Amino acid sequence: MDPDAVAKAFVEHYYKTFDSNRAALAGLYKDSSLLTFEGEKILGAANITAKLVSLPFQQCQHNIATVDCQPSGPSGGMIVFVSGTILTSPTEHPLRFSQVFHLMPIEATFFVQNDMFRLNYG
Amino acid sequence: MDPDAVAKAFVEHYYKTFDSNRAALAGLYKDSSLLTFEGEKILGAANITAKLVSLPFQQCQHNIATVDCQPSGPSGGMIVFVSGTILTSPTEHPLRFSQVFHLMPIEATFFVQNDMFRLNYG
Repeated sequence: MDPDAVAKAFVEHYYKTFDSNRAALAGLYKDSSLLTFEGEKILGAANITAKLVSLPFQQCQHNIATVDCQPSGPSGGMIVFVSGTILTSPTEHPLRFSQVFHLMPIEATFFVQNDMFRLNYG
Repeated sequence: MDPDAVAKAFVEHYYKTFDSNRAALAGLYKDSSLLTFEGEKILGAANITAKLVSLPFQQCQHNIATVDCQPSGPSGGMIVFVSGTILTSPTEHPLRFSQVFHLMPIEATFFVQNDMFRLNYG
């Protein structure tokens, strides 16, 4: 499978789910997954999902500017590097963000082992 | 060793070297290393160094805003996620960038297996 196509499909799925039903992101993480959200470290699918669901906005819309992907080494993973903007209701101005995912293979699919999110203020 | 301390030391070393003598970055990469620079994919230490040295500015200065780090899984690597600004001479306005490194252990140190760089235009 073409890694760039897998990365693009993952990114579309991830942000579509984030913007429509954050709780459903739980299925993408495992107990070993790590999220660093604006510097705060969170371990495990349950805690990560709780954090994402608790973010203080009801609606949001991600727009993706760039998606880069590389195989991460012998374990068969992929690093996906995203930049874009996020618009959170009722804010009117989109904020720029960058996010890194490390996807690890599991059966016929991937899960998110590593997730790091930063707003790019300016 | 504290992964955050390793990441911070790596980041300081990397950008100090980049800003003073780009050719010396060669020692941080291996033949298996991958760089994606503004979407362009480059394989191997020699090609990566040639690309970095050929960038069309003589002097530059990185200023780091954030450094996040996570262990990348069973192979003992670390993902380092950096945001900051770069000022290239003779430009007067710094540009924001984000960069991801995947460091893999080798003997008593690390090398850069994956490197992805993006400017964050605004």
